[in-house]
Amino acid sequence: MLSMKNEHQKSISLGQLAQLMEGQADQQAELLLTGIAPISQAQHGQITFLSGAKNYQHHLESLKNCRAAAVIAPLEAPELNLPTIRVKNPYYGLVRALEFFYPVERPKYGIHPTAFVSENATVADDVVIEANAVIEDGAEVGSGSWIGAQALVGRKARVGVQTRIFPGVRILDGCEVGSRCIIHANAVLGSDGFGFTPHAGGQLKVPQIGNVVVEDDVEIGACVTVDRGTMGPTVIGCGTKIDNMVHIAHNVVIGKNCTIVAQVGISGSTIIEDNVTLAGQVGTVGHVRIGHDTVVAARGVVTTDVEPGSFVSGFPIKPHQEERRILAALRKLPELVKKVRDLEKKSSAKEE
Amino acid sequence: MLSMKNEHQKSISLGQLAQLMEGQADQQAELLLTGIAPISQAQHGQITFLSGAKNYQHHLESLKNCRAAAVIAPLEAPELNLPTIRVKNPYYGLVRALEFFYPVERPKYGIHPTAFVSENATVADDVVIEANAVIEDGAEVGSGSWIGAQALVGRKARVGVQTRIFPGVRILDGCEVGSRCIIHANAVLGSDGFGFTPHAGGQLKVPQIGNVVVEDDVEIGACVTVDRGTMGPTVIGCGTKIDNMVHIAHNVVIGKNCTIVAQVGISGSTIIEDNVTLAGQVGTVGHVRIGHDTVVAARGVVTTDVEPGSFVSGFPIKPHQEERRILAALRKLPELVKKVRDLEKKSSAKEE
Amino acid sequence: MLSMKNEHQKSISLGQLAQLMEGQADQQAELLLTGIAPISQAQHGQITFLSGAKNYQHHLESLKNCRAAAVIAPLEAPELNLPTIRVKNPYYGLVRALEFFYPVERPKYGIHPTAFVSENATVADDVVIEANAVIEDGAEVGSGSWIGAQALVGRKARVGVQTRIFPGVRILDGCEVGSRCIIHANAVLGSDGFGFTPHAGGQLKVPQIGNVVVEDDVEIGACVTVDRGTMGPTVIGCGTKIDNMVHIAHNVVIGKNCTIVAQVGISGSTIIEDNVTLAGQVGTVGHVRIGHDTVVAARGVVTTDVEPGSFVSGFPIKPHQEERRILAALRKLPELVKKVRDLEKKSSAKEE
Repeated sequence: MLSMKNEHQKSISLGQLAQLMEGQADQQAELLLTGIAPISQAQHGQITFLSGAKNYQHHLESLKNCRAAAVIAPLEAPELNLPTIRVKNPYYGLVRALEFFYPVERPKYGIHPTAFVSENATVADDVVIEANAVIEDGAEVGSGSWIGAQALVGRKARVGVQTRIFPGVRILDGCEVGSRCIIHANAVLGSDGFGFTPHAGGQLKVPQIGNVVVEDDVEIGACVTVDRGTMGPTVIGCGTKIDNMVHIAHNVVIGKNCTIVAQVGISGSTIIEDNVTLAGQVGTVGHVRIGHDTVVAARGVVTTDVEPGSFVSGFPIKPHQEERRILAALRKLPELVKKVRDLEKKSSAKEE
Repeated sequence: MLSMKNEHQKSISLGQLAQLMEGQADQQAELLLTGIAPISQAQHGQITFLSGAKNYQHHLESLKNCRAAAVIAPLEAPELNLPTIRVKNPYYGLVRALEFFYPVERPKYGIHPTAFVSENATVADDVVIEANAVIEDGAEVGSGSWIGAQALVGRKARVGVQTRIFPGVRILDGCEVGSRCIIHANAVLGSDGFGFTPHAGGQLKVPQIGNVVVEDDVEIGACVTVDRGTMGPTVIGCGTKIDNMVHIAHNVVIGKNCTIVAQVGISGSTIIEDNVTLAGQVGTVGHVRIGHDTVVAARGVVTTDVEPGSFVSGFPIKPHQEERRILAALRKLPELVKKVRDLEKKSSAKEE
Repeated sequence: MLSMKNEHQKSISLGQLAQLMEGQADQQAELLLTGIAPISQAQHGQITFLSGAKNYQHHLESLKNCRAAAVIAPLEAPELNLPTIRVKNPYYGLVRALEFFYPVERPKYGIHPTAFVSENATVADDVVIEANAVIEDGAEVGSGSWIGAQALVGRKARVGVQTRIFPGVRILDGCEVGSRCIIHANAVLGSDGFGFTPHAGGQLKVPQIGNVVVEDDVEIGACVTVDRGTMGPTVIGCGTKIDNMVHIAHNVVIGKNCTIVAQVGISGSTIIEDNVTLAGQVGTVGHVRIGHDTVVAARGVVTTDVEPGSFVSGFPIKPHQEERRILAALRKLPELVKKVRDLEKKSSAKEE
């Protein structure tokens, strides 16, 4: 597996790695580690990790036959058969270890000779702009940002600092992406909103003159489409993470630190407050408000405003527990039909 | 908001603007207007608009504190506190005002030096072909059309006149797009239909040798995929508007003036007659016919032919009113299960 | 219809064509054929075909007025009014005829002058690399492969032999595509998996250092996204066919000869064994295993492990027959509510 090789041959002592992840090594602080891998794949010299997930007991068991040299484990884990770094959140430990052993490698050239950068664009000195990327008139690309091959930063579009734009992304005219964002391949920011008005027997296009504003620390998945506002912006708030193939219509406003899972569709002018989770394949009608800290379970369809802190599911959405009761009752429905028929027969028999 | 500035500094008198939208200014025909914006955002010198939408009363109220210089309103609106242009359809007024204040700006160059245009392509004199676009052998691009950056017009593909192809669109070999169309970023016209036949323990590909024909005045959203026919074309009829991320399979035929909302999936050989609306995330099985002037509500799954003029929803689709009754009854289902249990108990108690 | 012309003017005798498709011509083996078309469109000199599909009787009838010179028919077809090639699987006959009359034409150039091929890439002599394609450092492209316009083969990515990559595809760094694969336009292989862990009030990205491995003979649709594994690969097994706009999350493992229809979403670490069919718009939760030879009907949501050989549907999935009974019973639900109300009235009336 080519991309899992630690090609930099980086190594670190158990003690130093523990420090990186703000954890505690229980022994052998000098032990040299050369990589990280899951329990089932870890090799001699690598560290593995034990997460607090639902298969915890199973993982604990597997550890006994693991070839790893050490393990990252949650504080509450029992005594283990390997040198252990204990951390509050083992995933945090995993992140720091992955960052250490497999750092992202930026190409060494600045602007690739085949890229087109308009002389009217403003591009920081330390950017990377890959092959066949296009940076249009009036565009801005901030310090440390990295524009992938065949990506587009449109006219007067802006990309902040330390942002990575993957190949084939289209940041269309006038759209703005903040700092430390990651936009995955073939995503589109700033397609026209879907707006028409009946006219002369057909449908007349309502010009879409707004833009898209992606705030800082946002991640947007591959083949996501975010439409520009009709007037004013469509907004993706700071820290929000969006999975692949999500559709976000015009004038949607998404708050901070939301999680939008794959294939969700959000209709026009919907307002999503902070810390909302929309699970996979959720849909919303337009012009609704989803209160902060709400979770909409997979496949739910949001048809009305949702109170903050809700946990809802189904079509139309209901409290999740109610939806579960309905789904459970549904399995009894065919039998129920029969039972009622029987009751009716008995009832009318008595009447006779 | 960069893209909402009226950068052309265009201005127009209230009377002239009323003429553009075939409406009537009630006073101050000489009043000079410099832009248009929603009620809550309009600034001094701008015109705003009052739509006939469901929040009409709320908008009427907001108008009282609006800083706009004038307002576009429906004929039936009451006397307002601002100079007013009355029009039958305020959205029509909005369109004309947006078109005036924010005209689409075409790049001044014709063919960008980094574009590749085959010497065997036929390209009108007045086209725009943006950076890194590719126009292949035998392709045609009609007068006034505009091919976006990094877009492809494949071999023997055709684009009509006054059509706009956004960045990253792939019009694959032999596919045809009519006149005055708009194809949004990263859409694909002419991917192979999904056709296989069992052979030798695996699946043998059925060559897909048809094409895609997009008629005039069609708009197609970002990341839409339209498969070419197995034999013969997949057709999108005149005036049809398609939102983002819609999947249209091989040999589908869509009629005129249809509206296909985001994330719809249309299976192979489905026929959709004129003026049909498929709301968001609808699906269809293959080989069905959806009669003209039908509406399929959001998330519906079309499993059979649909009579013209239907309003259907659900999976499988039913008359919309029936589906609503079912969804309402579903909320009573867990209780119903209990009630039937009680009735059974009573009934058997009596029998004893 | 431009793309249906037999531009090569190829012709073949009925007898030879029968041989190509391992079938039997019943008469006039010398008859010269110039193309193939559906019954309703076939012209003089062309062969048509009669499939075993559900409209078989209708097709049989249509054959009487068909202008074709001959017909491909299943072994069990009755005596027909045209010279006939009988084959076990008429679709197999169709495939061989389509391949003969409409062979795929490869561009004659090898590497297009506008393509960028890194000097550190390894590219076979007989490849086609179209306009503005990019082949990065350390990439490999095998013999006979064909990289479409504006497509990307990333750093250390690998493409096997005889594989066709359509325009705009992104094979991101370190990902691998086997031999005889077809990847359709604007698909993305190797976008980051969607993995975060809570940290400091926000969400910290878990680096995704795995890759995507697409085995041999796989077809992947337009705008499909396949995420790279967090650690280790996301795998698409030999012979699997994937329709447009399917989302495949990190560390999913799909077996051999599966069929994944359009707009399916597969959550992380799901294991799909061999010969599984997921129909359109199906979803799965993460970490489930779907046994071999299973069919999940359209729109189903897989929420638990599925036994091999199952046929399931609904949300959550159930045996397909059970789901059908539930859907049938649902239409009686509003009436059922009323019936139970009536029974209750009668019951309490008796009690009084």
